[in-house]
Amino acid sequence: MIWITFAIFLAACFAAGTTGAIFPPGEWYRQLSKPPWTPPDWLFPVAWTTLYICMAAAGARVALADDNAIPMALWALQIALNALWTPVFFGLKRIRGGMMVLCALWVAVAACMIALWQVDWIAGLLFVPYLAWVSVAGALNFSVWRRNPGIAAAA
Amino acid sequence: MIWITFAIFLAACFAAGTTGAIFPPGEWYRQLSKPPWTPPDWLFPVAWTTLYICMAAAGARVALADDNAIPMALWALQIALNALWTPVFFGLKRIRGGMMVLCALWVAVAACMIALWQVDWIAGLLFVPYLAWVSVAGALNFSVWRRNPGIAAAA
Repeated sequence: MIWITFAIFLAACFAAGTTGAIFPPGEWYRQLSKPPWTPPDWLFPVAWTTLYICMAAAGARVALADDNAIPMALWALQIALNALWTPVFFGLKRIRGGMMVLCALWVAVAACMIALWQVDWIAGLLFVPYLAWVSVAGALNFSVWRRNPGIAAAA
Repeated sequence: MIWITFAIFLAACFAAGTTGAIFPPGEWYRQLSKPPWTPPDWLFPVAWTTLYICMAAAGARVALADDNAIPMALWALQIALNALWTPVFFGLKRIRGGMMVLCALWVAVAACMIALWQVDWIAGLLFVPYLAWVSVAGALNFSVWRRNPGIAAAA
């Protein structure tokens, strides 16, 4: 049963991740001024694939535990917000809108991590890299916003 | 606790629904040939708001029950796929791509309804209008695909 549950959560992650494939970073993103610490393009799909496996494992572990209402609701919330960021940032090219979604996502991921941890500490730990990556993504989105005031205001 | 759980699931629904607000049906959609039974534009937000409340209530009821692993995983999967359809159809204007996402969403919603029902029949019942609406949306997407072969092939 844990494998079926894991597979369904993983499918949810990849459904959200599909937005990254359908709105790839194009010429617009390449021309933006980005900070020197911007991760290279190839790292994003590698990082996300790793994170998806951790997220799905955390979800499956807690789904099979008792008293999982709040972490299960928060898991659903974070995946919906996760699916939303790419269409806003890369689809609509809205740097400020992307920042707003990322702030909401960060709060949802942090809350989910805490709620998972209270049920199963391994599940909580599996969300730590995700929160770290969303923090980096948030800092990058914020830096791009500050470095490209004309483009951010035009969107 | 049921109210907090309900509120989080409802937030997940509205996060997915935000895609409908950021990719509204514009001139492109109006110019498509649509079947005579196409629901009027005003009905879509009304229907979705009603469905979100039912979906969140179903999620919260089962989140607080035991043995909820599969329905909770499927709830997360369906909301991720739900968030994906609008960016594909209205964002990328991909009629065939939208049809593929809708087929996956239909299967996820049907599976979730059955899984919810096995834990709590009221929760399963609360997903019936959602499955009906996704069926209508799928029929509409399919009809638009058949009636606009040139536009569908170009995308």
